[in-house]
Amino acid sequence: MKQVDCRKLKIQGLEILKEKIKGENINLKVIQIEGDKASDLYVSNKKKAASFVGIKADHVLLPNDIKEDDLKSLIKNFNNDESVNGIMVQLPIPAHLDADDVIETIDKDKDVDGLTSQNLGRIMSKKEGLKPCTAEGIMNILDACIGLKNLEGKNATIIGRTKLVGLPLFHMLLAYNVTPTICHTKTKKLEQFTKNADILITAAGQENPFIGQDMIKENSVVIDVSTVRDESGKFHGDVLYDEVIDKAGYVTPVPGGVGQLTVLELMNNTYKAYVLQKKRKK
Amino acid sequence: MKQVDCRKLKIQGLEILKEKIKGENINLKVIQIEGDKASDLYVSNKKKAASFVGIKADHVLLPNDIKEDDLKSLIKNFNNDESVNGIMVQLPIPAHLDADDVIETIDKDKDVDGLTSQNLGRIMSKKEGLKPCTAEGIMNILDACIGLKNLEGKNATIIGRTKLVGLPLFHMLLAYNVTPTICHTKTKKLEQFTKNADILITAAGQENPFIGQDMIKENSVVIDVSTVRDESGKFHGDVLYDEVIDKAGYVTPVPGGVGQLTVLELMNNTYKAYVLQKKRKK
Repeated sequence: MKQVDCRKLKIQGLEILKEKIKGENINLKVIQIEGDKASDLYVSNKKKAASFVGIKADHVLLPNDIKEDDLKSLIKNFNNDESVNGIMVQLPIPAHLDADDVIETIDKDKDVDGLTSQNLGRIMSKKEGLKPCTAEGIMNILDACIGLKNLEGKNATIIGRTKLVGLPLFHMLLAYNVTPTICHTKTKKLEQFTKNADILITAAGQENPFIGQDMIKENSVVIDVSTVRDESGKFHGDVLYDEVIDKAGYVTPVPGGVGQLTVLELMNNTYKAYVLQKKRKK
Repeated sequence: MKQVDCRKLKIQGLEILKEKIKGENINLKVIQIEGDKASDLYVSNKKKAASFVGIKADHVLLPNDIKEDDLKSLIKNFNNDESVNGIMVQLPIPAHLDADDVIETIDKDKDVDGLTSQNLGRIMSKKEGLKPCTAEGIMNILDACIGLKNLEGKNATIIGRTKLVGLPLFHMLLAYNVTPTICHTKTKKLEQFTKNADILITAAGQENPFIGQDMIKENSVVIDVSTVRDESGKFHGDVLYDEVIDKAGYVTPVPGGVGQLTVLELMNNTYKAYVLQKKRKK
């Protein structure tokens, strides 16, 4: 078993990006609505990474009782402001706001989280666009483990079907000639699909880890996307790591795994957004 | 084995639509570029169906050497014309035109073929929109065979990954809690996936039919999307029909199968487009 050093991948990626954007003026708006404690840490990590690579990240902190129309107006102003290159809304947002509708308001070429239906559609029709950061991070990990060009002909099983991970990843893997399956809570005989997977990506986020060595294929790449905090405050994923490490080819740990890459890909997407906007102006 | 009577499904569907749109003024623009012989028949079938249900279908026949910009301008005029409810471009179009780019020009709420990346994105993010006609037709067939509510927990294998069939269908099945896999030319051990499929949808379009009874699961629903014309002028699909009929639960024939539904779904989509535009105006 080879462990994937996601922290190293992240640092390497940030260094490369830093070189690439030297001298460019790139601005990212990180919109946060007050009220979700965990978000503070995530936003702070994003600001740190941005500062490291040389992207100007503005933290736009809004009151908990903001009206949906006011939030949308703000986003539209950013859409029209040429000095703004990337816009993201830190999730979750309060229940009185329709998160889906709010996100749809973001200009597709500034949507650095890649969550608008226009960017999801671009993945499906293989057009240049912005892809969800966690899905991009997983492709980055696969590249580091086995190389993207070696994905062809492999079977992949994805557990979970969110817009952030499972759905975009499905199309991204298909583009590399992988044979992908999406499993979920209604799937029967899940182990049939996991045992057949050269690449297993799990984002179930259940209370207890459940992917043991009897559920995986020998020498497979196992990527654990889930981050669940137990009662004692410790984090775990879906995979029984200690059981799986001897049978798998590669496995990502939790914590210190996929999550590391998400922030990097947000920075990469912000640069990509900047490039897309420059092309559009021409 | 029960055969699926797709011709009957089509007629029933057209009758229902005819009742629904009585008294409504709905206009569809069928754009055809001269030069593809087979298109004449397809366009004529669309006009017939439209006339039957009471949709005004205008056949817009354009010269073979039309410039891409002129074609796009025409489409944009239709986009802005409130009296036009549906726009479709009969494919294939000549090689000097970028079919993808031309189709992207169509307003998403008038895109009755459901092929713009915006409509594909709407499927992925479960937003109301227009879905590709053949994929809709297949859902219609599945409803007739086993009922959409009975799809939950079933395994589906889709062979082929076009925007017209495989890709949208994947998401449409997933929305009914099916566990879907997409296979293609680079898939290894295809029979592993076909034998595990409660629902097998094949759109490979190979020179010879290749899905025999050893490749399917007992009592499965087998839907053959391919239509290949052999040297003698006869049509066949991917499935060795005579071999499979005794083992499958349901199987669609070629010809007289899935193709029957495509025209019906184009008419349904034209009505749906009309409704979407009315909503937008409000």
